[in-house]
Amino acid sequence: MRLGVCYYPEQWPEAWWAEDARQMAALGVRLVRIGEFSWSRVEPQPGMFEWGWLDRAVQVLADAGLQLVMCTPTATPPKWLVDLDPDMLAVGEDGRQRRFGSRRHYDFSSDRYLAQAARITRAFAERYGRHPAVVAWQTDNEYGCHDTVVSHSPQAVQRFRGWLQQRYGDVAALNQAWGNVFWSQDYSNFDEIDSPTGTVTEANPAHRLDYRRFASDEVLRFNRAQCQILRCHSPGRVLVHNFMQLFTGFDHHAVASDLDVASWDSYPLGALEMFWFDADDKQRWLRTGHPDFAAFHHDLYRGMSRLPFWVMEQQPGPVNWANWNPAPAPGMVRLWTWEAFAHGADVVSYFRWRQAPFGQEQMHAGLQTPDCRLDVGGAEAAAVAAELALVPTEPTRPAQVALVFDYASLWLLDIQPQGADYNGLRLTYEAYCALRSLGFDVDIVPPGANLNGYSLVVLPSMPLVSDALLSTLQSTSAQVVLYPRTGSKTDAVSIPEGLPPGSLRQLINLRVTRVESLRPGVTDTVLLKGSRHSSTRWRETLDAGPNVTTLAQYSDGQAAVVRQGRTRYLAGWFSAELQRQVIEDAAIDAGMAPVRLPQGLRIRRRGDLLFAFNYNAHPITLAVPEADWLLGDSTLPAHGLGLARRRTP
Amino acid sequence: MRLGVCYYPEQWPEAWWAEDARQMAALGVRLVRIGEFSWSRVEPQPGMFEWGWLDRAVQVLADAGLQLVMCTPTATPPKWLVDLDPDMLAVGEDGRQRRFGSRRHYDFSSDRYLAQAARITRAFAERYGRHPAVVAWQTDNEYGCHDTVVSHSPQAVQRFRGWLQQRYGDVAALNQAWGNVFWSQDYSNFDEIDSPTGTVTEANPAHRLDYRRFASDEVLRFNRAQCQILRCHSPGRVLVHNFMQLFTGFDHHAVASDLDVASWDSYPLGALEMFWFDADDKQRWLRTGHPDFAAFHHDLYRGMSRLPFWVMEQQPGPVNWANWNPAPAPGMVRLWTWEAFAHGADVVSYFRWRQAPFGQEQMHAGLQTPDCRLDVGGAEAAAVAAELALVPTEPTRPAQVALVFDYASLWLLDIQPQGADYNGLRLTYEAYCALRSLGFDVDIVPPGANLNGYSLVVLPSMPLVSDALLSTLQSTSAQVVLYPRTGSKTDAVSIPEGLPPGSLRQLINLRVTRVESLRPGVTDTVLLKGSRHSSTRWRETLDAGPNVTTLAQYSDGQAAVVRQGRTRYLAGWFSAELQRQVIEDAAIDAGMAPVRLPQGLRIRRRGDLLFAFNYNAHPITLAVPEADWLLGDSTLPAHGLGLARRRTP
Amino acid sequence: MRLGVCYYPEQWPEAWWAEDARQMAALGVRLVRIGEFSWSRVEPQPGMFEWGWLDRAVQVLADAGLQLVMCTPTATPPKWLVDLDPDMLAVGEDGRQRRFGSRRHYDFSSDRYLAQAARITRAFAERYGRHPAVVAWQTDNEYGCHDTVVSHSPQAVQRFRGWLQQRYGDVAALNQAWGNVFWSQDYSNFDEIDSPTGTVTEANPAHRLDYRRFASDEVLRFNRAQCQILRCHSPGRVLVHNFMQLFTGFDHHAVASDLDVASWDSYPLGALEMFWFDADDKQRWLRTGHPDFAAFHHDLYRGMSRLPFWVMEQQPGPVNWANWNPAPAPGMVRLWTWEAFAHGADVVSYFRWRQAPFGQEQMHAGLQTPDCRLDVGGAEAAAVAAELALVPTEPTRPAQVALVFDYASLWLLDIQPQGADYNGLRLTYEAYCALRSLGFDVDIVPPGANLNGYSLVVLPSMPLVSDALLSTLQSTSAQVVLYPRTGSKTDAVSIPEGLPPGSLRQLINLRVTRVESLRPGVTDTVLLKGSRHSSTRWRETLDAGPNVTTLAQYSDGQAAVVRQGRTRYLAGWFSAELQRQVIEDAAIDAGMAPVRLPQGLRIRRRGDLLFAFNYNAHPITLAVPEADWLLGDSTLPAHGLGLARRRTP
Repeated sequence: MRLGVCYYPEQWPEAWWAEDARQMAALGVRLVRIGEFSWSRVEPQPGMFEWGWLDRAVQVLADAGLQLVMCTPTATPPKWLVDLDPDMLAVGEDGRQRRFGSRRHYDFSSDRYLAQAARITRAFAERYGRHPAVVAWQTDNEYGCHDTVVSHSPQAVQRFRGWLQQRYGDVAALNQAWGNVFWSQDYSNFDEIDSPTGTVTEANPAHRLDYRRFASDEVLRFNRAQCQILRCHSPGRVLVHNFMQLFTGFDHHAVASDLDVASWDSYPLGALEMFWFDADDKQRWLRTGHPDFAAFHHDLYRGMSRLPFWVMEQQPGPVNWANWNPAPAPGMVRLWTWEAFAHGADVVSYFRWRQAPFGQEQMHAGLQTPDCRLDVGGAEAAAVAAELALVPTEPTRPAQVALVFDYASLWLLDIQPQGADYNGLRLTYEAYCALRSLGFDVDIVPPGANLNGYSLVVLPSMPLVSDALLSTLQSTSAQVVLYPRTGSKTDAVSIPEGLPPGSLRQLINLRVTRVESLRPGVTDTVLLKGSRHSSTRWRETLDAGPNVTTLAQYSDGQAAVVRQGRTRYLAGWFSAELQRQVIEDAAIDAGMAPVRLPQGLRIRRRGDLLFAFNYNAHPITLAVPEADWLLGDSTLPAHGLGLARRRTP
Repeated sequence: MRLGVCYYPEQWPEAWWAEDARQMAALGVRLVRIGEFSWSRVEPQPGMFEWGWLDRAVQVLADAGLQLVMCTPTATPPKWLVDLDPDMLAVGEDGRQRRFGSRRHYDFSSDRYLAQAARITRAFAERYGRHPAVVAWQTDNEYGCHDTVVSHSPQAVQRFRGWLQQRYGDVAALNQAWGNVFWSQDYSNFDEIDSPTGTVTEANPAHRLDYRRFASDEVLRFNRAQCQILRCHSPGRVLVHNFMQLFTGFDHHAVASDLDVASWDSYPLGALEMFWFDADDKQRWLRTGHPDFAAFHHDLYRGMSRLPFWVMEQQPGPVNWANWNPAPAPGMVRLWTWEAFAHGADVVSYFRWRQAPFGQEQMHAGLQTPDCRLDVGGAEAAAVAAELALVPTEPTRPAQVALVFDYASLWLLDIQPQGADYNGLRLTYEAYCALRSLGFDVDIVPPGANLNGYSLVVLPSMPLVSDALLSTLQSTSAQVVLYPRTGSKTDAVSIPEGLPPGSLRQLINLRVTRVESLRPGVTDTVLLKGSRHSSTRWRETLDAGPNVTTLAQYSDGQAAVVRQGRTRYLAGWFSAELQRQVIEDAAIDAGMAPVRLPQGLRIRRRGDLLFAFNYNAHPITLAVPEADWLLGDSTLPAHGLGLARRRTP
Repeated sequence: MRLGVCYYPEQWPEAWWAEDARQMAALGVRLVRIGEFSWSRVEPQPGMFEWGWLDRAVQVLADAGLQLVMCTPTATPPKWLVDLDPDMLAVGEDGRQRRFGSRRHYDFSSDRYLAQAARITRAFAERYGRHPAVVAWQTDNEYGCHDTVVSHSPQAVQRFRGWLQQRYGDVAALNQAWGNVFWSQDYSNFDEIDSPTGTVTEANPAHRLDYRRFASDEVLRFNRAQCQILRCHSPGRVLVHNFMQLFTGFDHHAVASDLDVASWDSYPLGALEMFWFDADDKQRWLRTGHPDFAAFHHDLYRGMSRLPFWVMEQQPGPVNWANWNPAPAPGMVRLWTWEAFAHGADVVSYFRWRQAPFGQEQMHAGLQTPDCRLDVGGAEAAAVAAELALVPTEPTRPAQVALVFDYASLWLLDIQPQGADYNGLRLTYEAYCALRSLGFDVDIVPPGANLNGYSLVVLPSMPLVSDALLSTLQSTSAQVVLYPRTGSKTDAVSIPEGLPPGSLRQLINLRVTRVESLRPGVTDTVLLKGSRHSSTRWRETLDAGPNVTTLAQYSDGQAAVVRQGRTRYLAGWFSAELQRQVIEDAAIDAGMAPVRLPQGLRIRRRGDLLFAFNYNAHPITLAVPEADWLLGDSTLPAHGLGLARRRTP
């Protein structure tokens, strides 16, 4: 369990570097990320490299005993490079080429940019790949940030056609798969196919989903090219990319499979402001973030990381990019840091060492204020560093619960929500919250994961269920909870034979004969074991086979929750409490022991350590009879935490 | 009174066709619409026709005793055609050419596409025009859907210039008519004139209205070309087009005059969700649609149909295209069908036989689910089919009330609302609701209609009133109700001499000296016969001549409703109840007998048949002393209907 | 104190002109603005001038004893001119060239349009520059209206590069100033720099602010070119431009310095509707405008006008351009007119003489209705004309309070709000309201103004504070009130050394260590002298030096208002009442005598005259012991006014 920090030596006078390095080390920082966005300073003119400053910066940091995460600078190709070949720039849905002047302007489908990225990656790798202080490499930065996965450039369309040819072999198969007989959409050859934009009304959802798949594969190709170079020239170093929060623009499982570590950038306050949370939540958790937010990502990225995952960027104070940018409550930077370690993180790295006084992110806090004094977040990081000495690093054990996470399913729901506020990621998150509110540790796993050993498996609104996943589910003895729309589509975005849930009928014998999406304000009542709950947004009508039992009913008597053997199906978008009830029952059937946690309290185990986190602005006292408290005690202060060694693992 | 269904044989295995046809006939379907969107399968390559499958499909259906509505497939030109000449594609307000990949991508002003559309129409007509089972032709599909009437292509602009030359003769006349002296907008010749888009602030409203008129004429030209071919090659068949709901993008009266039957596509739930209805209405009528919605369109399209109108597409279950897509309440598909017949429909055709499992509309219900089983709507259609045997077809008699409907007036109000929520179509609809809530049958008529025989004529917010209409109004003895802004503009979008209501001053001696639009939340009080009502959105100040009586006043004493002889004028956008009161008084003065119906109950006469429809979720008992009930009885169940023979016609 | 009116003789039959002129004079109009937008009629073809009609119009008006404000017609280049050189058209952020068909389509950076504008200006000036009736010239019309200051045309970008070269000398200095090391944004030469649009995420704020500065300078260049010609060919005439309300698109102080008179166009109702006022205010002041709205602009434009300022366009009734367009309450046209004179106006000119029945503004009222009868506003103008005879013209004396107004600071806050609803102009306006509600006359002054003689100086949220302004503040003895974010940035949009408020630390020894923006609904409590107030939107954390006293605290004890000597600093966006309290205390410390006025009552002094204005819909009685009432008396009727000579100046 180590702390890190992001540092941009090129942004500060060289005279400051040594003192910065000294202060980092003194504060307890072990790793420093550098090099990101440095292209225009390393190669200010085509082929003319100025390594001197970076060599010296590396040495200054190394001399202070710090280890380095070196970055490839490919997220920001310099202006001279863009001007050499403007077709390196991506093209938006509006058909306009993106312009230089911020970042991530490049096109993943540009072969020429790919070659340039490889060239600069190789240059970095050759120079620093074997430097003893360099222990890890970050590829690029936040793939897809600012909606940059999908491009509609001519080269992207060209490569898409090849991708389709690869996938379908001949165009008749594509016509068949996409249902192009509908609306006379048949193609005569692959070269007729464009990117699915600019159409009069929505383009074919199969066309759209394939374009998303293709674009995701382009990210994979881009990242893999860098990985290959780095593996070759920097043997033994850890490869890592910093993924983003609540971002599903490409298949992270696939990209992560080329890396050693999946890391993510944690900005709980900005996310609360910018995403779907309702107004009440946005007020209640204004300065803490939602209590399940960071944990959700820890569990998601741990699930795809070969080595223990990292937090590459941890919010240290107010940021600049949300609609509104409040400050973390005192204690939250410490809490977030410990929560990452609780969920199995190896590294938590703060963004950034010092707030920059210039540029687009000048209103983004750092550990230091621009006048080189320790900021609030810096002091909390120092506190964590001191506490780390008291806590052993324990291994992360598998959880009892698996939540299956499938990027392609989320793309599909994005493309075909059927109700304007049907957000698959949100429902997935709600399922996670329900699990966490019952005190469970959760593993978020890819659809191809081995599910043996899990007591409870949840598939949250996952239209695409492969035969392999079906087999896996059949081969476990876990209780299975299927959220609505699970199994509702084929790979080519069609309704499966025999209606949804398609092949999952082998687990639970249903036909979903009708679905409804419902506007905000429309609420159905669901009766479960005598108590009334609510359902909104989505409702399904089930035609259930004889072995299927109805567990809960809508007020008109139709089935709302049904069960066959160890499989449950939810025929609606249920309130938090109803989701919790259904999952709680399934967990009890699985022999687990759910504990209903009060609002804002969350617990997490790592090895024999038990962590408790209090997101509330008031203290909470835990009823933990016998525990050895390593940090705090059974009374968690507001925005505080406790860490105990469990006596009975 | 016949039932129909839309069927796409090309979307299903040929092996299924015969069974489908058998089931259709067994269910009670008499007409089947086919061929729509089939171009890419009929002519998969330029000039290479594959008629075989369609020949066989026609024969299979005919063999089952079904009659056919054949469609021209021009709404979806295939990709190879578009690639031959991309200028067949329309251009949006943003200056970008629309792209292939959905439907309706063609440009009405493309002469080359017009020729291609004529070519394929002729090919269809020659092949099937005299087939005995083919009894009708649908031209294209839903002209204007997805906002496709107006194009800003070079060819559209070119043709617009010619259209202007035709209309104005010389450019000086145009400058004069448009008021181009304002802001130095004078043109030296017609070739200087562009489409009214991309300007710094709003373009001249006269320019904009003429562009709308021109675009409407382009639709007329396009449709007429097909009609001429079909009349020639398919003599004796009925020509029909399926118009859309709440859609005023072109002059339907003009297009309908080239057809035999005006039909429309009825989706009451999608319309409720997507249009102006307030949140309360959207909840109350969530699964029924608004109680006047379908009736309004029945009366509108009946008013322009030479033969009894049709419903070409009847919603059978949830659709896919609204923001939220609920299911019809049980019984509503039956109710909607009978309501269409009550209003004079000859055919009600369901969209579609079976839900497609692929393509853009895969979430749109059919009479069958994708797994070939009868869906809820299918069962209700079967019930109607059985009931039809019990009910004679009676002629539709003229109503006592005429509501005048003018497309150009609505365009004008669109272009120049003067208040952000002033929606002319909505106010027209509200006038219709007021009339229907008083128990009246209503004829919705074009501005050029013969108004003799009507007792009450309503002009709902109709800025453009021609001299001919004035004469017609003068020659009737009907009570006339003028809504605000009626007569407020000249044909060239100017304020008429002597101020609004312009020449209507010959009916009621007014000057509208001032108008105000009022933001939501601003409410004025109107006193009518001692009771207080409310007015919102719009208020006019009247300077009334000596023979004009004030019937209602704003709280500051200004006139709100005035009357001269048999003409009333409403100087504001009034609450539903105030509209109802004013119309009720006018009806009584006309010797009519209004009956205030409870919410959600509507009645309609067809010949000697009296229909009653209950949109409520609770039963309603009618006080109908002596009636022979053909369907139901005086207690209408929730979402049910009653049909009685009137003893005293 | 004179009345004027805007007149477009070309829009009316020549036969009407003489009668119009007679009626204007009879009503009390002294000045008539003409020529604006007349280009297409003066020069209908390239180089072919038709002066005849304008010569005659000028003479008819002169013969009626009216004085003329002649306008250059450059806001509306005619179609033939645009077609000669389409690159005269501006280019929007979307990269699309603006199109002919409304107004203000030209590009300020087009040298060729500048030459054309100079040519037509010279032609007008040569023809009418020495006409005895022509007493003033208006340049162009409403620079920047419809968001037209900034263009992204190739010529604008080219000129921007030159502007940058001028400002920075070499590109290394620019890279340094802009912080281009951030995100590899370094440029190798000026020709690499584009306009800051079309980037993937936000462009560098320094880049954006410089583009705003550049665009403002382009307006300055354009206006100056006309002024030079007019000074040369029309000696002794007053040069004026009509600026807009709540518009900060360019530096008005700079443009005004080339003029004699700064005038503005006053549309209080449209502004209320279209700007930030909350729903309550929009209802309460629906037909009056906000009580401080017109006064704010009078004081702003008086502060930059060499001669007494004018209102060039005064709203006379409903307008056409707001989302909703109500009518002024009876009396408001008179009240607005007198209020302008109270604040020092020399001329109030109504827009327009007669409502045009055609064109884009046909729903915009005039003094006459289109049928040549006096409208409500016309009658009120006549009443003012009569009253003017009773009132002497007194000089405007400097106020005790200066509110500093800086355009560049507002651009910066626009570019970098940091909270979505942080609107610098709104906060400036709120500061003004607080001052006015305490009965003070206010001078709104440029940042370079001489501040000697003021007792109280307010800097409202003004990030950019020059060394010169700091010196000025240091040299006065005024109480100084600094709003949040004042001094928070350098000229190149960086955080100043030592943190905000930068060099203002010499007045008050603070470090603003943290800022937060807060979403609507989040409210902090501030305690001031025992009473509780609220703060929203923005909160700062202060690190205050030893001489700084805390005057008010947030509920967690942090400082909310601090003071050092005669300087106060507000660390948040405070409620109206809290702003008023802080300013009231400062005023008392300055020896002033604040008077808390009731809602909707405002007072203003001009020389020895005391004006009182009642924006309320109910009467208000003033406690003014001894006054000679020239207009009204101590009981102000609803929407009325009183004017007294002060006995003790």
